[in-house]
Amino acid sequence: MSTTFEPTARTKVRRNPVRGVYDREVVDSIINEGLICQVAFVHKGEPCVIPTAYARDESWLYVHGARANRTLNSICGQLACVSITLVDGLVLSRSAFHHSANYRSVMIYGIGEEVTSADQKMEAMRLLIEHVVPGRWEDSRQPNEKELNATLIVRIPLEECSAKVRSGPPVDDEEDLTWPCWAGVLPVELDWQDPLVDETCDRPAPDYLKGYRR
Amino acid sequence: MSTTFEPTARTKVRRNPVRGVYDREVVDSIINEGLICQVAFVHKGEPCVIPTAYARDESWLYVHGARANRTLNSICGQLACVSITLVDGLVLSRSAFHHSANYRSVMIYGIGEEVTSADQKMEAMRLLIEHVVPGRWEDSRQPNEKELNATLIVRIPLEECSAKVRSGPPVDDEEDLTWPCWAGVLPVELDWQDPLVDETCDRPAPDYLKGYRR
Repeated sequence: MSTTFEPTARTKVRRNPVRGVYDREVVDSIINEGLICQVAFVHKGEPCVIPTAYARDESWLYVHGARANRTLNSICGQLACVSITLVDGLVLSRSAFHHSANYRSVMIYGIGEEVTSADQKMEAMRLLIEHVVPGRWEDSRQPNEKELNATLIVRIPLEECSAKVRSGPPVDDEEDLTWPCWAGVLPVELDWQDPLVDETCDRPAPDYLKGYRR
Repeated sequence: MSTTFEPTARTKVRRNPVRGVYDREVVDSIINEGLICQVAFVHKGEPCVIPTAYARDESWLYVHGARANRTLNSICGQLACVSITLVDGLVLSRSAFHHSANYRSVMIYGIGEEVTSADQKMEAMRLLIEHVVPGRWEDSRQPNEKELNATLIVRIPLEECSAKVRSGPPVDDEEDLTWPCWAGVLPVELDWQDPLVDETCDRPAPDYLKGYRR
């Protein structure tokens, strides 16, 4: 497998091309860290974008929902554009114009394909659970036939992908460096809190939730 | 101004309709809290979705970029679908099938319109900065004519909007309540860290960054 993605007319980063990254490791790390993707598709000629959970394996991105889910049905056999965005900080330059954010973002283009075999659907369900909480699949009550039948799983090939990344300090024009205001970065991270046990449950939180982070 | 949005064929929540919220206060609060929106549009018949900063006033959502920005040019006079998503926690039910997330999400449909007057562009720039860091506009070096000319600002009416919200504990089927695993919610918040001053700056961090949160 190639270590870089080939930029296409659709995935080539045009704005601030210096921020474009086609390295597979970088793209993979962003997909692995994210929780939610935004799936865009065209429905009757109009754009639509929906946030949803996802999972991945070596070759595919998986999304799932109810069998009648309009988004999923709209991308079966049709082109989808998927965005995954992680925000790392606010970038405060002296000039309003150069304010920015530090972020890592991935864009994926691909034609959705329904996963139909029961084995592959079960494996996709496992990936979807394990992407969010590694260790959870073995603990949870795994899907029965009725649930699998009620679930539509669609996969999109991880072939036409690119990342866009900004990191580091603000970049001001030379003549603004003496402007009398603070400049720098306000970093942000996800803060995973203590698990809140359900009132119908009297078990201690499992080890895989302790120190959970992404 | 009406206190609720009228659901349309495009914004009516079809999946889990009980999660659909059309109350203006709820939609407003999600838009106000978010940092990044995902703008979807149709380009030559294909879907595209791009993450970007935004701001809002009573009537409009504003996005901006370079004058040649393809996304912005694609939504001038064309329908855009905008998604803003906040994740509040992971919902771990006993059954893999009922795993979910707590989230607050807004969808906005509207035709983009270029902001052309210099005064309105300056005001939109102020809103864009103040949406991210309230207090920053007065401190920063405000845009000059050249910068304003290089910036394309597009606004989308805040008229066709809906929210989708999930909160609270997991919901398991009755027969799964005795399944031998932990169930509950893993809450998550944004953790804003200490400001990192730029190496070319020797000023203390401003008050408006202290205790920054959204």
